[in-house]
Amino acid sequence: MSKRVGIVGISGYGGGEALRLIAQHPEFKLVYAAGESSAGSTLASRFPSLDPKLGALVIEKFDPTNLPDLDLLIASLPSGQSMEPLLEVSKQTKIVDIGGDHRFQPGWQYGLADVWPERIRNQSRIANPGCYPAAALSALAPLLDAELISNENIIIDAKSGISGAGRGGAENKFGFAECNEDVMAYGLLKHTHMSEISSTIRLLAGRETGLVFTPHLIPMTRGILATIYARGEATTEVCNKAARTFYRERAFVRIVDQPPHTKWASGSNYVFIHYACDPSRKLVMAVAAIDNLGKGAAGQAIQNANLIFDLPETMGLTGVSYWP
Amino acid sequence: MSKRVGIVGISGYGGGEALRLIAQHPEFKLVYAAGESSAGSTLASRFPSLDPKLGALVIEKFDPTNLPDLDLLIASLPSGQSMEPLLEVSKQTKIVDIGGDHRFQPGWQYGLADVWPERIRNQSRIANPGCYPAAALSALAPLLDAELISNENIIIDAKSGISGAGRGGAENKFGFAECNEDVMAYGLLKHTHMSEISSTIRLLAGRETGLVFTPHLIPMTRGILATIYARGEATTEVCNKAARTFYRERAFVRIVDQPPHTKWASGSNYVFIHYACDPSRKLVMAVAAIDNLGKGAAGQAIQNANLIFDLPETMGLTGVSYWP
Amino acid sequence: MSKRVGIVGISGYGGGEALRLIAQHPEFKLVYAAGESSAGSTLASRFPSLDPKLGALVIEKFDPTNLPDLDLLIASLPSGQSMEPLLEVSKQTKIVDIGGDHRFQPGWQYGLADVWPERIRNQSRIANPGCYPAAALSALAPLLDAELISNENIIIDAKSGISGAGRGGAENKFGFAECNEDVMAYGLLKHTHMSEISSTIRLLAGRETGLVFTPHLIPMTRGILATIYARGEATTEVCNKAARTFYRERAFVRIVDQPPHTKWASGSNYVFIHYACDPSRKLVMAVAAIDNLGKGAAGQAIQNANLIFDLPETMGLTGVSYWP
Amino acid sequence: MSKRVGIVGISGYGGGEALRLIAQHPEFKLVYAAGESSAGSTLASRFPSLDPKLGALVIEKFDPTNLPDLDLLIASLPSGQSMEPLLEVSKQTKIVDIGGDHRFQPGWQYGLADVWPERIRNQSRIANPGCYPAAALSALAPLLDAELISNENIIIDAKSGISGAGRGGAENKFGFAECNEDVMAYGLLKHTHMSEISSTIRLLAGRETGLVFTPHLIPMTRGILATIYARGEATTEVCNKAARTFYRERAFVRIVDQPPHTKWASGSNYVFIHYACDPSRKLVMAVAAIDNLGKGAAGQAIQNANLIFDLPETMGLTGVSYWP
Repeated sequence: MSKRVGIVGISGYGGGEALRLIAQHPEFKLVYAAGESSAGSTLASRFPSLDPKLGALVIEKFDPTNLPDLDLLIASLPSGQSMEPLLEVSKQTKIVDIGGDHRFQPGWQYGLADVWPERIRNQSRIANPGCYPAAALSALAPLLDAELISNENIIIDAKSGISGAGRGGAENKFGFAECNEDVMAYGLLKHTHMSEISSTIRLLAGRETGLVFTPHLIPMTRGILATIYARGEATTEVCNKAARTFYRERAFVRIVDQPPHTKWASGSNYVFIHYACDPSRKLVMAVAAIDNLGKGAAGQAIQNANLIFDLPETMGLTGVSYWP
Repeated sequence: MSKRVGIVGISGYGGGEALRLIAQHPEFKLVYAAGESSAGSTLASRFPSLDPKLGALVIEKFDPTNLPDLDLLIASLPSGQSMEPLLEVSKQTKIVDIGGDHRFQPGWQYGLADVWPERIRNQSRIANPGCYPAAALSALAPLLDAELISNENIIIDAKSGISGAGRGGAENKFGFAECNEDVMAYGLLKHTHMSEISSTIRLLAGRETGLVFTPHLIPMTRGILATIYARGEATTEVCNKAARTFYRERAFVRIVDQPPHTKWASGSNYVFIHYACDPSRKLVMAVAAIDNLGKGAAGQAIQNANLIFDLPETMGLTGVSYWP
Repeated sequence: MSKRVGIVGISGYGGGEALRLIAQHPEFKLVYAAGESSAGSTLASRFPSLDPKLGALVIEKFDPTNLPDLDLLIASLPSGQSMEPLLEVSKQTKIVDIGGDHRFQPGWQYGLADVWPERIRNQSRIANPGCYPAAALSALAPLLDAELISNENIIIDAKSGISGAGRGGAENKFGFAECNEDVMAYGLLKHTHMSEISSTIRLLAGRETGLVFTPHLIPMTRGILATIYARGEATTEVCNKAARTFYRERAFVRIVDQPPHTKWASGSNYVFIHYACDPSRKLVMAVAAIDNLGKGAAGQAIQNANLIFDLPETMGLTGVSYWP
Repeated sequence: MSKRVGIVGISGYGGGEALRLIAQHPEFKLVYAAGESSAGSTLASRFPSLDPKLGALVIEKFDPTNLPDLDLLIASLPSGQSMEPLLEVSKQTKIVDIGGDHRFQPGWQYGLADVWPERIRNQSRIANPGCYPAAALSALAPLLDAELISNENIIIDAKSGISGAGRGGAENKFGFAECNEDVMAYGLLKHTHMSEISSTIRLLAGRETGLVFTPHLIPMTRGILATIYARGEATTEVCNKAARTFYRERAFVRIVDQPPHTKWASGSNYVFIHYACDPSRKLVMAVAAIDNLGKGAAGQAIQNANLIFDLPETMGLTGVSYWP
């Protein structure tokens, strides 16, 4: 019998992508959608290509104490807005929170689905990784696991599409004419994702890390490319082998022989990882490409949802990337 | 038992989108792929997110006299390249030709799937409509059928994404730096799609038409918007009603109450149509939005393929549009 | 001695482009800048490539009764915000209003600089044309003047870059992720620019016109392309000759033999016009390309400013377009 | 008396930008233009906004032994095509080569105009820096000069617009539909610009450097952002002060207090540099933004041309950046 699913934050990009994925999922049935700016309108009014039956669902204001009977709630709210409300949701309802408020909070499992699926399986409260960490940690996890890189001097230079900045935005900072034909770095030496990555690396490596993370916004809608520089004497072959072993049972990770394009991942839950090493200079490089709304948000959320209901992790996620 | 399917022209954008759709189709199984520039490489080398089993298929040079046993061949070749070769394909193999060479040729059914599905059902040779006609005719067919517009002075002003120009292109005419931040009209008063639309209108209306068609290229990858100006005294309500009646059993046509965005159709086989009339000035306007690679190419091809095998027309095409 | 110039609306795109043009104008010296969101900051903080001396100017809140001594004020305020305030500006200060509030108001000359420069010369209050009218009227004026087209059934299908929507925008409607990879029509049969064009045509032709104007937003920052369909029996040659005669003393109008690209006009005050006729069908087509912030706003404003001070119309506007 | 100037490679993006800048230069007069694909056509046919007198110039095939009398030749040819031909040009004609063939060749001065203008002044043969080195070296030079960073472990992660890939391109690799909505790294650990940067650093620092340089292509036409990670114990303030001192007499370098946008430099010869340090971790970061066709090609070429004729370095280059 299919699972009854709700989405909170349906007006945002993460919530919208969750809807797209759930609509084609064989075991999940959307029965509830909540949104701030769109409350009162039908799903069809915002997502015109929905099947009319699903499209007739009316978007509600989110009230955690007055939810319908749900097996799963996927939350995708702006930072700071899901902390309290999600704690009030019935224990009968499992939650995957795409937002950042519950990461590394007691009672919440950090949902790095390709790295530790077994910690996620059958859990009830999952904090989905942020989009930047999802990209960077995919490439770093096998290297840290096999102790191929030093815990010092890891540099992550990440490039994200504008949808990663969310749908709001004061002063039209993310307006088309502002962002088009422009690229910039932001949050130098202080981006909040830096601590999320550090915390995870501590878990993976059992030690502190000297990490630098620099995010950039580039003029495209979707996609993240993380270019990573670390210290180690491994060869490219050794890194490839370690990663292929580490991910040998994972469907969504591809170790590739050329630097990946973010377009390869567009609309999918895949991550593409390329390693390039120069042992003579003790340099290990990695490049990881994802869709920030796929593996970086809704794709990974569905993968986590599959795991917590002990379904195959690929269910509903087998669509080929969108090209061109 | 699933149908054995081949794609010719796999390196192009139409062929690539056909692959994406077939990969998720429950009854079609891709067993053959041919391409010019990509022959000899695996599908996975060009489409890295493919399932590994499908990705292992090796792309071949197209030889119509030496094909494997196929139930269906989808051809997406540049203009002028499919005329002879497709005539040599075995009668056992049904063909949907996305390219233009066989439109209105003897033995080939013009595949306007939402307008005359019954003429297509169980046929063996289908000429898929061009991308511009697919958009424009969707909006015009109900008006012509109900005789709500004059056969004179129909103006179609169409805007297409750059993928509509195909993947080749001499002199880097469609290079990023050339097309970005630019829009232009082309083929004024002589575009070949004009005669394709005229021929179809003659079939629909039983009379000649005074048609003007102006295509434009705009800086986006996918999508066509056709803005149509015709003469008639109908009100918006009358046009809406005529169209809803005309398409009452069709899944992929949506008559909408505001001018549609091409993004609504992105990655899907939908067409969105909006009518706006001013009877006092005898003006009937229509705006139609499609994905040029969906309804304008591969989406309609799969819909036609469903019809020729008497499968539900929506099979494999139910994915929600890609947003944002 | 150089003219003392002020800009009101410096935070917007029109004001910003006016600043760029004034900074390189040999006779205009910017001594005052006012803006809403940027008041209190220096010009350099918003326009980092300004010469440091000019960049040190502090942006003020606009108070029309308390302006410094100015020869010229260029206003570029959102619709509805310049009506009252500009009436309070001292008569000693000439005004070019890029905004729409004073068009066709008593005491204000409509500033179609390439069409009637003599009506503008030495005037004191100029209402700059809107960006869509600037494009469309450039192409229509010679045809109406030479009576080559009918006053009925003029259709203007215009495509604008997103900067034309201004810098504000509720609900992130013009956010990058919303506008990228999208095109849409808006304001069908009711856009305010329709009446501005109609009013001007009435002046040009001495008669009422049956006009349809449909604006579209396309995913680029700058540029407008107007595709025009009219009724008439003229040949292409006749139209070209009429236009070349009409504009024989104008520096910024180019009649061209192929459909123009908007990129040709990028960053400049030029308009490119192409005619294509089919006398057998009584069809006269025109395509006009401008930069919406150039000829469509600040470029034409500077041209008007040159005229009202009886300077050469090209002064400060001779820069070559930006390519690619 | 104005200098007689020729451009070779007028069909390319670098040559086109040189033309735009020369057309507004008070002392340079273009009397000769050569191009491969455009030979035989007029300048106006490719640059429609040119002044008609300049536009009438006919583009020629380049023959170095049969040039008109020129004071200056600006060459912007693809890699490998300027080596021999430029050696045949008369000694009476000074040369600035935007292409890479003569960098660090005997008899050619490397033209890092903001760093060592005095080495360039009055010279006759200038090899213009590549676009990536122009960005990266601007930020690194003051740090190396003041010995604020180690010569080991300098990482340059650079992001370039697509015009940097030139106008040609086999297989439509830089086609709009390929590059749009995509980002990728390329040439990992082996890009030719790495050795150009290393060679210059050796000159600046008097020592070898352990350098990693990773270029990326992002979906915009113009701009380069270089994000740089180096080792050193300096504070942000110390770096800012060192850079402001180093560049105290330079007009085109701006040390800024927030990470720069590439759009700030669009169409200009400016470089914007931001430093951010964490001495506790011995980390010195720098972000530099330029227009790849400005400071990265034609802008710096004109600056060099000014220097070799002992003109003010800013002559003809004072235009404000293009925004938005």
